Formats: sequence, C-alpha cells, structure tokens
Amino acid sequence: MRRVDWDFVPEAVVVGNGEFPVSALPLRMLDTASFTVCCDGAADRYLASGRVPDRIVGDGDSLSVENQKRYASIIRYNPDQETNDQTKAVNYLMEKGFRRIAIVGATGRREDHTLGNISLLMEYMRMGAEVRMYTDYGFFVPMKGDCRFFCRKGVQVSIFAFGTQGLRGEGLAYPLRDFTNWWQGTLNEATGEEFVIRGEGEYLVFINMPSVS
Amino acid sequence: MRRVDWDFVPEAVVVGNGEFPVSALPLRMLDTASFTVCCDGAADRYLASGRVPDRIVGDGDSLSVENQKRYASIIRYNPDQETNDQTKAVNYLMEKGFRRIAIVGATGRREDHTLGNISLLMEYMRMGAEVRMYTDYGFFVPMKGDCRFFCRKGVQVSIFAFGTQGLRGEGLAYPLRDFTNWWQGTLNEATGEEFVIRGEGEYLVFINMPSVS
Repeated sequence: MRRVDWDFVPEAVVVGNGEFPVSALPLRMLDTASFTVCCDGAADRYLASGRVPDRIVGDGDSLSVENQKRYASIIRYNPDQETNDQTKAVNYLMEKGFRRIAIVGATGRREDHTLGNISLLMEYMRMGAEVRMYTDYGFFVPMKGDCRFFCRKGVQVSIFAFGTQGLRGEGLAYPLRDFTNWWQGTLNEATGEEFVIRGEGEYLVFINMPSVS
Repeated sequence: MRRVDWDFVPEAVVVGNGEFPVSALPLRMLDTASFTVCCDGAADRYLASGRVPDRIVGDGDSLSVENQKRYASIIRYNPDQETNDQTKAVNYLMEKGFRRIAIVGATGRREDHTLGNISLLMEYMRMGAEVRMYTDYGFFVPMKGDCRFFCRKGVQVSIFAFGTQGLRGEGLAYPLRDFTNWWQGTLNEATGEEFVIRGEGEYLVFINMPSVS
C-alpha cells in the first residue's frame, strides 16, 4: 500500500503565480529548497522577498523588464500556449531529473487559476512526479488506489474524488463514498495518527495544518 | 434556452467566511443590497468595515462576544453540524422567500473551504435559488442544460463539469468536451458579446472580470 508521510523533503520547489505564501511551512520549503523554480509571474515577488531562484520558467510576459535583464542567465523561456506556467515549471524540473516536487504560492488569486493549479496535481502524478502543493493552510497531495496517511490526530482532511470508484476510509471521522461534488468530501477528520483511503482510480487529498508556526 | 445576463441584481447578499472583498463589484453588491446576511465568522469583519448586516446566521462560535451582545437581535443561531455557515445563510434566505442571491467573501482563505463553498452553488441551484458567487476576480454561476450567456467580448470563461454529458460551446475560443479534470475547462474566452453552452446535466461557469473598478 502506498504511504503518505507528514514530512516531505522535496528535491525542488516551484513558486506559482498565486499569492506569495506567508505561513511558516511554505516559507520554510522555500528557504531550505536545494533547487527553486519560479513561474515568471511569481519571480518579481520572489526576488522582492530577498530570495533568488535557480531558474525562472514561463512565457516571459509577466516578469519586469529590469529582472528580465538582470536574471537573463537563469530564465528559460517557454512560449507554449497550451500549458500554464506551473506546468512549464514542473516539466522543466522533470526533464532535469527532479521527481519529488513541492509547489507553493499557487492559490489565492484568481479562483479559476487556483482550481486549475490544484487539479493539475493529478496530471503531475500521472507524469511520475511525487508532488505536493503547500498553501498557507495545509497541503494537497494527489493519490490513486489504496493509501495510508501518517498525520496528527484530529487534523482536518478533505478528499476530492476524480471519478474514483469504491472510495472508503479507515481512521476518519466520517465515511467516504463516491463523491459527485467537491463539498461532499470536505472537513473530515483523522481520528488517530494515521488513516487509510481505499478506492479505484485517482483522488486528491487536502490536509489542513492549523498549528504550523 | 436559459440565459445568464452580465448584470445581476440580487434580492439578498450573503457575506461568507473567506477573505473580505476588496474589488469594486462585490463591494457594490454589499452597499446596494436590500438585505444582507453575514455568516457569523464574517460578521466581525463586516461590522469592522462600517456596515451593519440585516441578519447574522451560523453556529455562533466565531463571532466576538462583544458583537454577540450588541447585535443579539439580528443573530439567528443554527447549530446544525451537517451544513456549513454559507448554506445556513442561504437556507435562511430561501425560507424567508428570497430566491435571487449573491454570495461574496466566500473564497481566499482555507482552500478546502473555498472548494466546498464554490461547489455548494450546485446545491443551491437544485434548491431553486438563482445564485451567483462574486469574488474579487469575477463570478461563479451554476447552470444546467443549454444556456446563453451575455457578456463582454474577450472575457475569460472557465467551465467546470459536474458529470455533465455532451458538453459543447458556441462563441467560445476553445471547444468544450466532457471534462474529467477541473483545469481542462479553464481559461476559455468569449469571442463575441454572447456565448452558448450546451450539455446534459449541471456545470459551473466562472466569468473573469478584470476591468471592474
């Protein structure tokens, strides 16, 4: 059975085009990452925070002219109109051999972008990445099949089905079923320090981390 | 064929538990609403903005003690653990005979709450409400079957399928299909001042409003 541990040490971090993070955990990801890629719309904010990324990836249309010149050596332009900057950054990393990837700063602005960015985690899993998205409130992890999660007792857990069949849980306060709407799987709770989700197909899990500081 | 107009004059407005709005359109909704209900977690922020709601609805656990006393006459407690405060507010309004409802301030904090709140629009439509959610970036409207949308040329449109069959569009830059993941229907674009979505079943539309000021 697959397992998802509470701790996650990514090989690389992607900084997305959403709100720049303010919580301790996504900021710690940034400050301990051995390799960081900014989506180009995020690079100005990231540089303004006093950090310098290893690469800036995107179509180049949302980076200031000043930073385009100053950081020209680390910019990798990708004009593909069929994918968004987050996916371009993940593709870039996977081509370089990175597989365990954290994404931060991907939510909190336009809601359609937020929904798109979150749901693209399912595609990155299909591409072979071990990926999580850290927000100011917790993390999203895409999964498939049976999986055991190691967490903290009482944490709130939300499960979003993507056509999953036979969804059920163990160690969760409320039963799972084959949800047809997003809200149906939200605000569940781990009754102990681990829980199991079973089902055929893919699903997305959000684990709230209220006490991160 | 159903129609969705650009303009929407709600009979009542719900203020949700997310980020308090800063954009002109949701704020104008609040300032012109003839009846406003705050989810109790939002009431402190709403009152701090200098406005007074007509009702405060919720389980009462997230309103300051001071405001609980001062506004006791307009608070309607609802301890139901099976529904969230947004749904309690909508239920309250529908029981009072309000049907055309705008929701503001429902996104932008915990992403699982945001996803839940957005997707609950589908339930409110089933309950008979004509409902829209206005954010700082645009609005969500739940729909079913064939529908003609009146908009502005070039606006970005995202379509989220909820088991919809035979989804297709007219007057949109990119073709629609029976999407199985959220990102697939995002960032489409109206090629003129109206577009049509056809399909069997329910779906959710987000219309971006970048130029609202």
